[in-house]
Amino acid sequence: MNLKAEQKKKTEEINQILLDYLPKEGGREATLCAAMNYSVSVGGKRLRPMLLLESCKMFGGDVEAAKPFAAALEMIHTYSLVHDDLPAMDNDRYRRGQLTTHAKFGHAMGILAGDGLLNYAFEIMSEAVCVQGANAAKAMAILAKKAGVRGMIAGQTVDLELTGHATTTELLDYVNERKTAALLEASLMAGAALAGADEQTLSVLEQVGHFVGLAFQIKDDILDVTGDEAMLGKPLHSDEKNEKNTYVSLIGIERSNELVSEYSNRAVTLLESFEGPKEFLTKLLMSLAGREY
Amino acid sequence: MNLKAEQKKKTEEINQILLDYLPKEGGREATLCAAMNYSVSVGGKRLRPMLLLESCKMFGGDVEAAKPFAAALEMIHTYSLVHDDLPAMDNDRYRRGQLTTHAKFGHAMGILAGDGLLNYAFEIMSEAVCVQGANAAKAMAILAKKAGVRGMIAGQTVDLELTGHATTTELLDYVNERKTAALLEASLMAGAALAGADEQTLSVLEQVGHFVGLAFQIKDDILDVTGDEAMLGKPLHSDEKNEKNTYVSLIGIERSNELVSEYSNRAVTLLESFEGPKEFLTKLLMSLAGREY
Repeated sequence: MNLKAEQKKKTEEINQILLDYLPKEGGREATLCAAMNYSVSVGGKRLRPMLLLESCKMFGGDVEAAKPFAAALEMIHTYSLVHDDLPAMDNDRYRRGQLTTHAKFGHAMGILAGDGLLNYAFEIMSEAVCVQGANAAKAMAILAKKAGVRGMIAGQTVDLELTGHATTTELLDYVNERKTAALLEASLMAGAALAGADEQTLSVLEQVGHFVGLAFQIKDDILDVTGDEAMLGKPLHSDEKNEKNTYVSLIGIERSNELVSEYSNRAVTLLESFEGPKEFLTKLLMSLAGREY
Repeated sequence: MNLKAEQKKKTEEINQILLDYLPKEGGREATLCAAMNYSVSVGGKRLRPMLLLESCKMFGGDVEAAKPFAAALEMIHTYSLVHDDLPAMDNDRYRRGQLTTHAKFGHAMGILAGDGLLNYAFEIMSEAVCVQGANAAKAMAILAKKAGVRGMIAGQTVDLELTGHATTTELLDYVNERKTAALLEASLMAGAALAGADEQTLSVLEQVGHFVGLAFQIKDDILDVTGDEAMLGKPLHSDEKNEKNTYVSLIGIERSNELVSEYSNRAVTLLESFEGPKEFLTKLLMSLAGREY
């Protein structure tokens, strides 16, 4: 299996799912919908919906039924980026080489498009739950919790609070666990929940997502120093510019790279305990540690 | 029945429900949770959860099971106020005589507290759906849709777009239907859905909420000109200051007052078709047209 080719094909499939589920532009809400659609369409690796769908497949679930959750998950991820980019937050005008939503549509529309994406994600999932029942409700509850005030939003809050202040690897772990790992955990867990997986399985997948998330975030910090600006689609050294403490600034690049490998290996080892088809998922998770973009 | 005394008692009951469901402050998320709790606790008439609970009772539903939805609904309403007050939106530093969330906790925390409340609302409802099943899923789907990009968020978007521009009563109706009526419709419909009401019933309740919402919003515009600043807890003439077109500026106070009465009467007439206990609900809806605060 060629990981890159397979990943590209799956990314395009997910882009199509997103197009199917995003609100159609038109009427008086045209600008709002355009801002939402722009935010989602400017790219990204679609890693979270990909993990959700692959996890669902691994446990023999119905991919068709998982599609609304894949779309909702990417909308939640996207809203968090749109709001993080706002002037009062990280104040970024570019992401993935494109203007951020507020830079293109104005500050107010940046707030509203983010709100719209978060609400729309739950609108889509609620409708799916009405049709699909218990497993879907469980998947939605997982996503809601991991995206919430003890999860992703807590991570962004503490990340902002730490900016410009001295920190420790413990505090960075707190942020990384919530800001990055929480939604990856949710991806794997929700996909499995849709397939009817039990609590024990969900708990192992939570750990897989946890280690993948930490590896992914530390790698992100490393790439901010050593990466290729054109491939990343954003300026290097943004952490330094924003006075953000990272693993690189705290323990150096070499030890950071070691941690990325260690966490990735732990994630893949845990994944091996499952019997379903998982070749692509395993390779994808491994590649996160080696990614150069 | 003394409406004011009964309303006060029910408001206190709802305040207790909110306290039960709001996140406990503490840990590293203390500031975030404090900002969320502050936003919700600074008051308000709790009209939406009150309508939800009364509607649920009218159709013989279980009030205990409706409590998480009442709490979630007030959180959604509150998040919309917190974000509307932001500098990039209406830029209000006071609401109900208190500092707005961003004025007290900073701009970034205003965004995050709003995000937190919206997400937490769906977290609470998702958990309830996992326990309660189909009726709860239906209630959540109603709230999600009415709060969303074809509902409340669309209203706020177009309201912002219209500010400073000439408008018509048709455009004002578009905004009022979405920004104000949509969540009132959702309150009545979700309460009934929790009690297992059928689609026909939900459709009538949607109309009730529609007329109540229009009456309420036009009354709000009137009070901005003729009200008592101390009782309103906010400065008068904010619409004029913000160059907002209102019913008052378009058709005058007298005709606006007539419309409030007309819409309120239509709402109450529709409500009379239902047989369950509704004395308090009816009086409450009637009072909306006569409120002086």
